[in-house]
Amino acid sequence: MTTLQSYLKGQWVSGQGHPTSLVNPSTEEVLATCSTGGLDFKGAVEFARQTGGGALRALTFAQRGAILRTLAKVIGDAREELIALGLSNAGNTRSDAKFDIDGAAATLNYYADLGTKLGEVKVLGDGEGVPMGRSARLYGQHVLTARHGVAVHINAFNFPAWGMGEKAAVALLAGMPVISKPATSTALMAHRIAQLWASCAALPAGAFSFVCGSVGDLLSHLGPQDVVAFTGSSDTALSIRRQENLARDSVHVNIEADSLNSSILGPDAVTGTETLNLFLTDVAKEITQKTGQKCTAVRRIYAPADRLDEVRDALVERLKDVRVGNPADEKTTMGPLATLSQLRDVRAGIDRLAAAYEVALGGSQPVEGQTRGAFVSPTLFVNRKPKPDATDPVNGHEVFGPVATLMPYSSTPELLALVAAGGGGLVSSVYGDDKAWLNEVVVGIAPWHGRVTISGEKVAGQTLPPGTVMPQLLHGGPGRAGGGEELGGMRGLSLYLQRTALQGPRPLVEALANVKPAATPT
Amino acid sequence: MTTLQSYLKGQWVSGQGHPTSLVNPSTEEVLATCSTGGLDFKGAVEFARQTGGGALRALTFAQRGAILRTLAKVIGDAREELIALGLSNAGNTRSDAKFDIDGAAATLNYYADLGTKLGEVKVLGDGEGVPMGRSARLYGQHVLTARHGVAVHINAFNFPAWGMGEKAAVALLAGMPVISKPATSTALMAHRIAQLWASCAALPAGAFSFVCGSVGDLLSHLGPQDVVAFTGSSDTALSIRRQENLARDSVHVNIEADSLNSSILGPDAVTGTETLNLFLTDVAKEITQKTGQKCTAVRRIYAPADRLDEVRDALVERLKDVRVGNPADEKTTMGPLATLSQLRDVRAGIDRLAAAYEVALGGSQPVEGQTRGAFVSPTLFVNRKPKPDATDPVNGHEVFGPVATLMPYSSTPELLALVAAGGGGLVSSVYGDDKAWLNEVVVGIAPWHGRVTISGEKVAGQTLPPGTVMPQLLHGGPGRAGGGEELGGMRGLSLYLQRTALQGPRPLVEALANVKPAATPT
Repeated sequence: MTTLQSYLKGQWVSGQGHPTSLVNPSTEEVLATCSTGGLDFKGAVEFARQTGGGALRALTFAQRGAILRTLAKVIGDAREELIALGLSNAGNTRSDAKFDIDGAAATLNYYADLGTKLGEVKVLGDGEGVPMGRSARLYGQHVLTARHGVAVHINAFNFPAWGMGEKAAVALLAGMPVISKPATSTALMAHRIAQLWASCAALPAGAFSFVCGSVGDLLSHLGPQDVVAFTGSSDTALSIRRQENLARDSVHVNIEADSLNSSILGPDAVTGTETLNLFLTDVAKEITQKTGQKCTAVRRIYAPADRLDEVRDALVERLKDVRVGNPADEKTTMGPLATLSQLRDVRAGIDRLAAAYEVALGGSQPVEGQTRGAFVSPTLFVNRKPKPDATDPVNGHEVFGPVATLMPYSSTPELLALVAAGGGGLVSSVYGDDKAWLNEVVVGIAPWHGRVTISGEKVAGQTLPPGTVMPQLLHGGPGRAGGGEELGGMRGLSLYLQRTALQGPRPLVEALANVKPAATPT
Repeated sequence: MTTLQSYLKGQWVSGQGHPTSLVNPSTEEVLATCSTGGLDFKGAVEFARQTGGGALRALTFAQRGAILRTLAKVIGDAREELIALGLSNAGNTRSDAKFDIDGAAATLNYYADLGTKLGEVKVLGDGEGVPMGRSARLYGQHVLTARHGVAVHINAFNFPAWGMGEKAAVALLAGMPVISKPATSTALMAHRIAQLWASCAALPAGAFSFVCGSVGDLLSHLGPQDVVAFTGSSDTALSIRRQENLARDSVHVNIEADSLNSSILGPDAVTGTETLNLFLTDVAKEITQKTGQKCTAVRRIYAPADRLDEVRDALVERLKDVRVGNPADEKTTMGPLATLSQLRDVRAGIDRLAAAYEVALGGSQPVEGQTRGAFVSPTLFVNRKPKPDATDPVNGHEVFGPVATLMPYSSTPELLALVAAGGGGLVSSVYGDDKAWLNEVVVGIAPWHGRVTISGEKVAGQTLPPGTVMPQLLHGGPGRAGGGEELGGMRGLSLYLQRTALQGPRPLVEALANVKPAATPT
């Protein structure tokens, strides 16, 4: 039996106490165990802050970018080994595992490039400077500097590689050391990446630490210059946000939690249009990719009321041939859920929806031919009388699996109210080509979302599935989704940088901010 | 006896239950009472969201800017009446009251101008767009849209006009309706402004509401699209941040709390320099203006160790002739604290510091000639052995009155550690002309501050006192200061706007974001 260790203070260490098991969710075989009991998290935080933070802040953005490029290469070089871990420990199909691993490497490379662009500086100017006084001499300019703390990253079970990679990329580029904690159940892939990174000479001592197992009392050691970035359930998010020392010391906390993402078919995307085809392809993919275990996967599908049955039949047609099974079998197109505990939750969620809606496909019953493992069928509901509030089960709770609900809308105001009833989400995807309708819908739902995708004939063959998170664009959303902001190019860096207004003599302020002096009128 | 009302759902209403008294802190005379018992806060939130929010979102930024210009004019027109209320209800000298009132009007006018610049649009582009796909057709662009909720503003007792004005300016410009609640003790000035605003035709129904008295259960009615901006004590800030419905729904919460602001004299600012003179003038002003009751007032003063006594003597010289008394007397140069409760807190704070440090001037004893009222003397301590941690009382607690502590430093690393021991602040002011030293100090303390001012010979005669908050520059600070960001031009708007990444066909996305298409290479 493999015992997974944590990497703290530059050492691989084993915890004491009752170990947690990591399981193959297809076979229920135990693959490894880990524990963090008794580990010195206080010392780890101090080591990261002082040794790691000091070393990173001594580097320029370009130098930190070069580190990220190395970290991406390490992942790329180990791609096949990591894919195998995704298949065994996370229930990933080969395609699912590649999506996770390649997403991690691509995001690290994107931020490596951003580092190159930001250049050989340690302080960034933020926006344009402003004259402050009666003459041009007194000048104001905002700057961004790395916070003097540690960034604790707590990731979800669904993206062991990408989750760790995207958070680490942004924090390290900003100049903050990272303590990364993956969800224990699927940690094998993250653990292997951590091993490769820890032995990587490019990374300064203390810049990266790794917790394999429970987070223990780690967060209680954080203070005013530290950061917590959490991806996971609303309940855990709530307890982190309300933890007294974090709230008292204004620790920067970024949350990415539940999201009842929606896909909307426009009235003009009628039978035979390329736009309808895009919609059906994307929705089917978002339901089944990673067995529906993506924070950006579609949960609510809206179609014009008079075409509800047509859309239902077309979706069923695309989903009915999904082959659920052990990803070790090459014929499998959808693997199991990540854990048996997730299986229980998803089955309960399906039963809750089944009590209220019509089942078009699937259900909570065991998958035919599977006697063990966390398997569930792709499941589509039809809710013919959706309500624009949380009393409608589809707006109350996210079922984190291959499960979505199709609903009708009769007017744009009704549609906007239904979408908003999700309480805030990561992404909504809109399919149509009528500019006036798109304008009304996109502006109407934007305040409730971190990202809105628009697909239609003009971008057919070019679009990205709405669930794919790109480093250039914001990832996060208001309300239920946690109110956080990750990625989005420079935007994601602000979690790790302090913004400070400098006010003083213009040449001095401009030199401090590394901004080129604006042309002064003569 | 005047009974002050609240303005909710477009009506002036009186609360039930035990009233709170507003007092003249010089004479202890009761000036008015108010109560919010039994008021319908749930209905007020819904009215503001629906009627006010709908009306504001239907306006362009330029139109909202025009409203702000009217609100500023209303304040300017009532200037003398408002000054009189500051003198009687807040212990303001005439100069203190003007600072508050003119600050409110200037900030409203600044954001009115910003509205004009943003123009006749309702959606703003955020940053540059990015090509997303294999061709130039698929495009990403971030946009900012008004949140569909209400902004609740809870202000501190020290700036009844400015606090309300600056928060309202930013929220209304963003397109969010405001419910403003001043600290009850000094609410007369804010109440008068609210009366003038409420009768102002420029402001749409529901765009502005006003709570005079306890906040009651107001915050429990907020949800995912709402905002709370709070200025006040750390303890109240902590309870707001941890309030379950706010944390669960990711309500945007901006906190501006305590701050142990510092002023630093550089080693080169020797006797006879203009820089030393600037330092002494600013420090004396920051200690006494508004009787030291500014969130940006100086609490910790650092001077080179070998010049500690010289600086002490020079500061005592400037502070000893301050005339403490009823601002109704024109010879008064510093009024009382705002309330008797503040007097108790400040006296206790002075006693705590007096137990540890040398008293250079003042103390907690009654002010000579004053037999009643919230009077306290300007008080300067010398802490000859400062420690870079919270065990040193000067780093542990803000005394919110005309009280500061002078301390020596012997090296730049020691200075940086001492300043950081404040745990995060709103502003630090640095006085010197040596570029290398300024660079090291400013970059070293920036991560701990929302603003750093640099004063020296090059800007002599041009500088603003460090405690003056300008709308162009950020107001807020990390850690102890609450971790918030207000003002700073466009930056302050982000509390009230949702940032959303749009991803779709380039022309459509650019039109939605109101950005001009970039020149496309042909």
